[in-house]
Amino acid sequence: MNLTMDMMKGAMSASDRPMKDVDLSMMQEAVEALSACMQACLMCADADAGESMGRCAAMCSNCADVCDTMMRMMLRTTGYDVRVMTSMMEACVTMCRACSAECSQHAEMSEHCRMCAMACDQAVMAMEKMMGAMEEMPAS
Amino acid sequence: MNLTMDMMKGAMSASDRPMKDVDLSMMQEAVEALSACMQACLMCADADAGESMGRCAAMCSNCADVCDTMMRMMLRTTGYDVRVMTSMMEACVTMCRACSAECSQHAEMSEHCRMCAMACDQAVMAMEKMMGAMEEMPAS
Amino acid sequence: MNLTMDMMKGAMSASDRPMKDVDLSMMQEAVEALSACMQACLMCADADAGESMGRCAAMCSNCADVCDTMMRMMLRTTGYDVRVMTSMMEACVTMCRACSAECSQHAEMSEHCRMCAMACDQAVMAMEKMMGAMEEMPAS
Amino acid sequence: MNLTMDMMKGAMSASDRPMKDVDLSMMQEAVEALSACMQACLMCADADAGESMGRCAAMCSNCADVCDTMMRMMLRTTGYDVRVMTSMMEACVTMCRACSAECSQHAEMSEHCRMCAMACDQAVMAMEKMMGAMEEMPAS
Repeated sequence: MNLTMDMMKGAMSASDRPMKDVDLSMMQEAVEALSACMQACLMCADADAGESMGRCAAMCSNCADVCDTMMRMMLRTTGYDVRVMTSMMEACVTMCRACSAECSQHAEMSEHCRMCAMACDQAVMAMEKMMGAMEEMPAS
Repeated sequence: MNLTMDMMKGAMSASDRPMKDVDLSMMQEAVEALSACMQACLMCADADAGESMGRCAAMCSNCADVCDTMMRMMLRTTGYDVRVMTSMMEACVTMCRACSAECSQHAEMSEHCRMCAMACDQAVMAMEKMMGAMEEMPAS
Repeated sequence: MNLTMDMMKGAMSASDRPMKDVDLSMMQEAVEALSACMQACLMCADADAGESMGRCAAMCSNCADVCDTMMRMMLRTTGYDVRVMTSMMEACVTMCRACSAECSQHAEMSEHCRMCAMACDQAVMAMEKMMGAMEEMPAS
Repeated sequence: MNLTMDMMKGAMSASDRPMKDVDLSMMQEAVEALSACMQACLMCADADAGESMGRCAAMCSNCADVCDTMMRMMLRTTGYDVRVMTSMMEACVTMCRACSAECSQHAEMSEHCRMCAMACDQAVMAMEKMMGAMEEMPAS
């Protein structure tokens, strides 16, 4: 992840980025949490499918795709738009919360669901931290 | 697209889908509009990059990923959750509107931006139509 | 799809594209087949997961992602590289064939598997047609 | 990344996985290298687009998508198929090598290209290590 953050540091130092005042460590935390959540959701969906847990598999597959897209948007610093980012972060938090709630129902009998719920919760926390910081910024 | 809708019809006829009352033709329109928007955005981003239009390229790349994810969520009928879908549709509309606004600025000099803005506008219309229909449904 | 091909025509008319002699109708067929296969695979994986068909769901999820990426690479005309495209097309054909073989095993009892296998077969045919045309081109 | 590997360990311990003898540390190295390469390529493409480096941006965007899909296939242990995985790993190596070659041309003047080429090279090394280990396995 150090390479990513070295590149992010260079990208964010450009003067005309609408989110240039976002803390780099907060960004790193979010990118890492989204990446981990995407990976956990892909593996949980894969395990679910063999266990007839179709609802959980679909929620996890959706959550993996949403986290992937959210992470891609964070890495494209040139495209930052506060309104778009805020709206997508809200969707991402809603998705991760719903996936965590679904996985938590199976956490006692299924270890992959327990771990996937944890990854979703961490993604929610990282998103909310960043959304809090962004509220103080003017819309671009 | 007929194959997709044949499969969608089968999937939506299952009795326990939270969005089973959504009209199939409305769903088809949305999936087709998102697919076309994703493709237009990928090509516009590709053309932009060689023309030093970094902001437009980044907006289009983000919009392609958001439309891709939104379409995937629509095709996974087992994972329908009204709250999650609504939130993601709002993010998708916000993204497509912002991308259309950006592309429209270059529409006169750049044919790919003019067409990309059109594709974004059609995706917005299809999403809004579906969101209107969903407002009358109870949250799952 | 007309919009996509209008944009593709503009992009491919640029003089320095390594694959500029590829027939536009062949490209259109490939993009449409990949898009349809991606959509069929996403829906088949979704249905499989509730039926304890884990192996089929995983194959279909992989096939959806491979077709998505293959389609994205076709739409990015600026990035055409004959060696890379050929290698990715071979991987895509191998993936679609394996997914078709898996789905065909369940085709009699499962309508979504029958339709997904058809979509995979059509993607294979479109890829092979293009690969045949590309063999006559020099490596970039 | 620890959570991912905890989940991977559980998934790979299931007895019927065609690639169950692949070393877990080798898998971890590959997943981490692909994730890092995807992130570096996304950021490099984003920076390129503003600098009129269209060819480099397109190669990096393609490479990001290929690495994303390759990583997803590795995380779906239920879908392992030696022939498909081998073919996709060859495509991924071809893509990462081509992207590294492109970025290396701009490495002296562009720091993001220098770092992106490094990430591509590391992904190639991780893939080749795993391909070497897989050669000793029978086709599924």
